[in-house]
Amino acid sequence: MKSPGPIGFIRGLLRIISAKPQAPRSLQDNALLNVILRRRSVRSFASRDIPDDVFSAILEAGRVAPSTVNLQSWSFATFSAESWRAKFGHPIPFKARRAIIVLADTHRDRLALGTDAFPHSPLMEYTLAVMNASLAAMAMSIAAEALGVSSVMLSETGRSGMLDMAWLAEQLRLPSGVFALTTIVFGYAHGVYPPMPPRLPMETVSFDGAQGYREPAPGVMQSWLEQMIAGYKASHLTSSFEAQLRIYQNKIEQAEADLHRMIFGDS
Amino acid sequence: MKSPGPIGFIRGLLRIISAKPQAPRSLQDNALLNVILRRRSVRSFASRDIPDDVFSAILEAGRVAPSTVNLQSWSFATFSAESWRAKFGHPIPFKARRAIIVLADTHRDRLALGTDAFPHSPLMEYTLAVMNASLAAMAMSIAAEALGVSSVMLSETGRSGMLDMAWLAEQLRLPSGVFALTTIVFGYAHGVYPPMPPRLPMETVSFDGAQGYREPAPGVMQSWLEQMIAGYKASHLTSSFEAQLRIYQNKIEQAEADLHRMIFGDS
Repeated sequence: MKSPGPIGFIRGLLRIISAKPQAPRSLQDNALLNVILRRRSVRSFASRDIPDDVFSAILEAGRVAPSTVNLQSWSFATFSAESWRAKFGHPIPFKARRAIIVLADTHRDRLALGTDAFPHSPLMEYTLAVMNASLAAMAMSIAAEALGVSSVMLSETGRSGMLDMAWLAEQLRLPSGVFALTTIVFGYAHGVYPPMPPRLPMETVSFDGAQGYREPAPGVMQSWLEQMIAGYKASHLTSSFEAQLRIYQNKIEQAEADLHRMIFGDS
Repeated sequence: MKSPGPIGFIRGLLRIISAKPQAPRSLQDNALLNVILRRRSVRSFASRDIPDDVFSAILEAGRVAPSTVNLQSWSFATFSAESWRAKFGHPIPFKARRAIIVLADTHRDRLALGTDAFPHSPLMEYTLAVMNASLAAMAMSIAAEALGVSSVMLSETGRSGMLDMAWLAEQLRLPSGVFALTTIVFGYAHGVYPPMPPRLPMETVSFDGAQGYREPAPGVMQSWLEQMIAGYKASHLTSSFEAQLRIYQNKIEQAEADLHRMIFGDS
């Protein structure tokens, strides 16, 4: 990973500030589209509580999300600010008011269909559950946004996601076949929304399927990296993109071993 | 798997017809929430084309979806009705007008960060990419719904999803580290929306995180199974839930071996 020089830093910062999701002009008045495109991962919350009916509606969006063969291979562990603190001994990260730990759940399907419903296929069952649980997670996050509630999906902060799967399985007393993916924390945003972290250009992340996979144009990934590094430096006074990556690098080996054991049942 | 008798069948059918997503009364006028809760997987499309600007806006919702450390580990293979037919020799399933094959992409991150950015951790990198690509998939599906466009995420029909990962990797000439998860097919719904396939009760899919995982109440999974079987029989004249499961059972062993090879690079 090459770090950018000062010119790259400034260029990166300017690109972040000017970048906006691009709704076609003809559709700029569509309220829900705007909610989806303007959603941000928010990390600063007001002290105002989320009413029960609003939180229920967010969960309902997860409950009715689509899933492979309607198997609904997800579970949601819900928390208030108080119950999170009672459980984990510290506040919900970013002082959010509610939290949902989203679990990929293959256990419940096996109760319904029988443990021998499928030939031994741990990776496929795991993949299916991770995909479905993630669909539900996104539906809940967008539903929250539609209700004026901001959120962020955590992967690491406060041992909240897949890097601490084994620890979370213990904490939540999960049966085998249930995997903690991410914690979504919810609250009312404190202050204005931050600019969008640098997204890759549409022509980098999509391609004409009839033509086959397209590699990124030269320089695109380096430019994105410059923006990531500049954006982190500007918004996290005490951290950096490299430091954030190092947290992952340090935790991922243990997480890999744990996950291997959890999927394949070896030790 | 125990099949229900005729009373179970009728009971299942009545439950499906009466089940509706439950927005709290106080929020029933929220248009955006209603779009999310009333979304259905649609399998019957009108011949009307989706305008380019509408399809672009759907893709944009995927491009700006959130992801772990903003890594955007997804790619979208896009198709029109014509390019799908040219590529695969048959129409998009259900005569949809556009299709997006959603790919979990670990390849591009490695270009940016270097192949040795992380200690060897194929399962974690795979999980992260599957989760992120699924978040993008759900965002695109909800964005479509917001624009009046219906969709369904396919896992099997027409070799469109994770059960045919290896075949799709060949078809799309995917580099190693890129995995086809699902194909979303889009179009304008033909006729009225079908009732919601039977969702599990909220108290079955969620639990108080401070209390720990909760097993389903007795009978809940059997009741759900009755509804699934009845619903399939009522809506698929030539198929059944058991037949659909058998398709998965037959394909999953090969898919498991392929996926193992694709993740771990063995043969």
